Amino acid sequence: MTRIAVLGTGRIGRMHAENIASHPRAKLAGVYDIHAPAAREVAAKLGVQEFESVEAVLGSSDVDAVLIATSTPTHADLIERSVAAGKAILCEKPIDLSLDRVNACATKIAGTDLPIMLGFVRRFDSGHAGVRRAIESGQIGDLHQVTITSRDPGMAPDDYIEVSGGIFRDMTIHDFDMARFILAEEVTELTATGSRLVDPALMQRCDDYDTVTVVLKTASGKQAIITNSRRAVYGYDQRIEAFGSAGMAISENRPMDHVRLYAAAFTDRAAPLKNFFIDRYADAFAAEISAFVDAVEQGRPVPVGFEDGRQALILAEAAIRSVRENRTVKISEIG
Amino acid sequence: MTRIAVLGTGRIGRMHAENIASHPRAKLAGVYDIHAPAAREVAAKLGVQEFESVEAVLGSSDVDAVLIATSTPTHADLIERSVAAGKAILCEKPIDLSLDRVNACATKIAGTDLPIMLGFVRRFDSGHAGVRRAIESGQIGDLHQVTITSRDPGMAPDDYIEVSGGIFRDMTIHDFDMARFILAEEVTELTATGSRLVDPALMQRCDDYDTVTVVLKTASGKQAIITNSRRAVYGYDQRIEAFGSAGMAISENRPMDHVRLYAAAFTDRAAPLKNFFIDRYADAFAAEISAFVDAVEQGRPVPVGFEDGRQALILAEAAIRSVRENRTVKISEIG
Amino acid sequence: MTRIAVLGTGRIGRMHAENIASHPRAKLAGVYDIHAPAAREVAAKLGVQEFESVEAVLGSSDVDAVLIATSTPTHADLIERSVAAGKAILCEKPIDLSLDRVNACATKIAGTDLPIMLGFVRRFDSGHAGVRRAIESGQIGDLHQVTITSRDPGMAPDDYIEVSGGIFRDMTIHDFDMARFILAEEVTELTATGSRLVDPALMQRCDDYDTVTVVLKTASGKQAIITNSRRAVYGYDQRIEAFGSAGMAISENRPMDHVRLYAAAFTDRAAPLKNFFIDRYADAFAAEISAFVDAVEQGRPVPVGFEDGRQALILAEAAIRSVRENRTVKISEIG
Amino acid sequence: MTRIAVLGTGRIGRMHAENIASHPRAKLAGVYDIHAPAAREVAAKLGVQEFESVEAVLGSSDVDAVLIATSTPTHADLIERSVAAGKAILCEKPIDLSLDRVNACATKIAGTDLPIMLGFVRRFDSGHAGVRRAIESGQIGDLHQVTITSRDPGMAPDDYIEVSGGIFRDMTIHDFDMARFILAEEVTELTATGSRLVDPALMQRCDDYDTVTVVLKTASGKQAIITNSRRAVYGYDQRIEAFGSAGMAISENRPMDHVRLYAAAFTDRAAPLKNFFIDRYADAFAAEISAFVDAVEQGRPVPVGFEDGRQALILAEAAIRSVRENRTVKISEIG
Repeated sequence: MTRIAVLGTGRIGRMHAENIASHPRAKLAGVYDIHAPAAREVAAKLGVQEFESVEAVLGSSDVDAVLIATSTPTHADLIERSVAAGKAILCEKPIDLSLDRVNACATKIAGTDLPIMLGFVRRFDSGHAGVRRAIESGQIGDLHQVTITSRDPGMAPDDYIEVSGGIFRDMTIHDFDMARFILAEEVTELTATGSRLVDPALMQRCDDYDTVTVVLKTASGKQAIITNSRRAVYGYDQRIEAFGSAGMAISENRPMDHVRLYAAAFTDRAAPLKNFFIDRYADAFAAEISAFVDAVEQGRPVPVGFEDGRQALILAEAAIRSVRENRTVKISEIG
Repeated sequence: MTRIAVLGTGRIGRMHAENIASHPRAKLAGVYDIHAPAAREVAAKLGVQEFESVEAVLGSSDVDAVLIATSTPTHADLIERSVAAGKAILCEKPIDLSLDRVNACATKIAGTDLPIMLGFVRRFDSGHAGVRRAIESGQIGDLHQVTITSRDPGMAPDDYIEVSGGIFRDMTIHDFDMARFILAEEVTELTATGSRLVDPALMQRCDDYDTVTVVLKTASGKQAIITNSRRAVYGYDQRIEAFGSAGMAISENRPMDHVRLYAAAFTDRAAPLKNFFIDRYADAFAAEISAFVDAVEQGRPVPVGFEDGRQALILAEAAIRSVRENRTVKISEIG
Repeated sequence: MTRIAVLGTGRIGRMHAENIASHPRAKLAGVYDIHAPAAREVAAKLGVQEFESVEAVLGSSDVDAVLIATSTPTHADLIERSVAAGKAILCEKPIDLSLDRVNACATKIAGTDLPIMLGFVRRFDSGHAGVRRAIESGQIGDLHQVTITSRDPGMAPDDYIEVSGGIFRDMTIHDFDMARFILAEEVTELTATGSRLVDPALMQRCDDYDTVTVVLKTASGKQAIITNSRRAVYGYDQRIEAFGSAGMAISENRPMDHVRLYAAAFTDRAAPLKNFFIDRYADAFAAEISAFVDAVEQGRPVPVGFEDGRQALILAEAAIRSVRENRTVKISEIG
Repeated sequence: MTRIAVLGTGRIGRMHAENIASHPRAKLAGVYDIHAPAAREVAAKLGVQEFESVEAVLGSSDVDAVLIATSTPTHADLIERSVAAGKAILCEKPIDLSLDRVNACATKIAGTDLPIMLGFVRRFDSGHAGVRRAIESGQIGDLHQVTITSRDPGMAPDDYIEVSGGIFRDMTIHDFDMARFILAEEVTELTATGSRLVDPALMQRCDDYDTVTVVLKTASGKQAIITNSRRAVYGYDQRIEAFGSAGMAISENRPMDHVRLYAAAFTDRAAPLKNFFIDRYADAFAAEISAFVDAVEQGRPVPVGFEDGRQALILAEAAIRSVRENRTVKISEIG
């Protein structure tokens, strides 16, 4: 049993706490939130301890690992403190919005052999992982092109957008990780295109974009194309297509159920798509906990680690530079 | 070049005339209709001769073959006369609504080696024929169960229904032929179930049914299930599923085009189905002409002949008896 | 918290025990199996009590309800004893293979207001339930025809088949319940067709069938068609299609994941179907526990009860008589 | 009747000749090819005149229009001569591989009111045109992103590639036209990425690419992404996806037929894709002739004209510059 405490009991922390609580090989060691009533409610509901401080969590001998689901600006700090306290870490993305801060954190924790896993949950989706497996097993031959479609069902609230670090660091970062995961070769250059089409006024105010396309290229010439939108009215659109010398593999969208309807007005209508990430990636979030427990218990390397978080942020930085300067950017220019 | 005259220029005769006119190995030798202006219009449009009588058609040395698309009660008579005149025949289904009349016709034309082909057009559909090919090539192993879904997009006019001979002779007859085509083994018994759900008053008046299910069985135990409805509001529903020891083959519905739509109100909507038989089976009608020309020119046996028309009618008679007597009927009871 | 003890820790009992253990509103009160080591293993794994006897379970004040997953011949007896002990019941299907025994059980427990729920798990499948919801909400108008395709991925072992009570009581019984669930009107007559195509020798020996079709009809003329096979080599084939005056709703098969593959050899290949009932209906089994807990905690009526189990068995008896006597059977002839 | 002569009776010219011959409102006025036997064979097969020279065609009073399907380097010249001769023109793409030559041709024919239509056949595909119609009718709201996937089933012969003008002028040019057709707003800049993955040696020799991605942007910020490969082993991959503020429309691939196969080895396999452009766009080629005849007979503007051909070539030139200089190129830099 891996005893995991959850730091941060917002929507995503609460979901992780429930997943840990019902995991056969994990034990929810307790929860903490800077807003105590939030932690208290989750603790009561799941019948576990409410920690009163981060210190209490990190000092507890009943805690093997921490899951960091607090607000982004606290992540790097909590990683450093958790490493110092000898706790294994599963940290929600991103490590930090600042690459400098991430690099400083990397320096500080250098040399630790504690498992530090990044919460790029999509790697644990059976569809996306299935595409990678199809490649690894040779089913589509040498990889040539990867197309990643990733559109949120709707705009986040304005105040979320304002502190999000911008679409590339907040939303595309998942797709940068997917591109690296599927390409299995480092990206050497990229070109990003940004438009303000969903909410031009807000985007103008934040110097941000709501509709972006990024083309990434590796040294051997593999291409990956990411298309993002902050709002797809038909639902959470999450697809990956990998094209190679011997075929193509596609990870398709997930409807809520498998009912199709036919009527005079429409003919053949599928169920709506699963609504946003907690539903869409529910199985993946559970598999992520399993992978983390495997790493902690069996000393296996984490399947996605700190450096993966850093690399995805580097691609986000490159994309920001690309869209600002309207040019192709070499990844070696960053960091 | 096979020179074919079309008898009957109603909707289906006109379509056949156009198909013959544009067929590379056929020549439209002219058209005839009991209602002269109808024939005249088609003749003018296609630039061919208008025959003034059946005698003129059958007596013409410029006519190798006739396509019989007149009203049902005239079919048997025209077959007999065409055989007497030495013309090859492609006759729309059914041969006649009366099995006695069909048997009499069979006796009369016995011994002819003229090609006499029945217009069971669905045999020439690439999907349905593809299912049969999958069976013949062993792709699904030994055949166990066949499911035929066949629903019209809407009720025919009352006066059509009243002279149609009832749903089994008029509509299911196509499915009986499909069952025989896919089973490739004669049916030995069947059970039919009829309901009045679409238009109960009309069905009551005609002693007919608008919603039927027929289960057919062969000597070796193969099963075929036909479901019919006179009205599917979502369009012309035409599917065949063949299940066997090594797999399953499905001939799917045909959308009008390959556009899918996604919107807030529905998510993933396909194009409407092709609208009724002239659209849905357009390719099959053209292939039917080719098969007929092959039979005439190359002396090949017709792929679907008089006896197939007779057998389908026998199954219709058995179904009528089954539904009236509410019992399983052996095919040997009929005829 | 509803405290549920599981009787019987075979494959299905073990799955139920795990589902109860991880259910937020249920508590696994312990497990029992006639083969003690089997219970011990599950008890140890899930950290719960192993009961030494049925008496111990039924006598425990820590047990609110029992889930009966023992062998079929013990079901009726355990229902009677559980009712006598005042425990709520969730019993795996069937109640018994003998309708007389079921009727006797019904008499014995008459008047109890304890929740007694039957494990017709498919009612809790989001797809099948979605079809019913589409009907209830009027999306397909008046129901006319229901098509239920239900094929196992492979033959059960010979010794299972031999004591199964035959395909109609063992396998089709689920589809009889589905037919009743979707039709929402009692069946008045049926015609069953049976063939021996998958394993003729075994079927002959057991006086059983491996390939069956059943057509059911209600008083108002609604039709339901069930097709079963003991072996579909492509996987567990579970589909329901409901056709009505205003449209059609289809509950589709479930692929293992949403990856599609395209290659030179095949073009567009879907993932394999979910493998048999524990995978295919995993969500439904969890939802079933929730529905049971709702009934126990909130005093709501069970969504599927003893009488549903009895009615499905009556349809199985009618089907057996129909196939033996090769005739349409009125349901009123049975019981 | 529009009397059309076909210049060039290679594979595509022959297909056009057949389509014209069987078109109800067109008449094949004859054929010409620089290689006389090729023309003779087609003329004989279709029962039309073989012209001995271009002069004979252009001088004939029995010719209203010419369809230019000769080799690319002759197109601009034949356009100029046909205009001089007062013939309406349907010319296969591209006008010429050199933008200078195209501009010179434009100057020379300036002021003519003869219909001059460019053979961008994909505009007449019911799926692609259906996507545009969905946009025009407001079904997906304001357009944000267009994704065009276009992959050939296999490499053309080396000697074809060597004179093709490169992938952007030869293959992507169709997609540039599709982008303009769907975007319905002029492109202002683009970034092209090219790789040598299918046949690196040949591509090196030709200074060409076999795997390309192009991102195009309009003044208002609409984005279009084109992905091309010279070889998709699973078949001719032709898809368009348009994403907007109110939804998404997708033009899907076309299987050869609508048969699906399920077996132990694969589960649910679709039919192969239609094989290359003559099959895939067969309906579109026929619709193209109709549109041309409409323009000639009714004096309607051609739906896709000389300037569309020129604009597509400008985008190809911009893409070549972009990939060579590895930077975003403004369209205003070209021409």
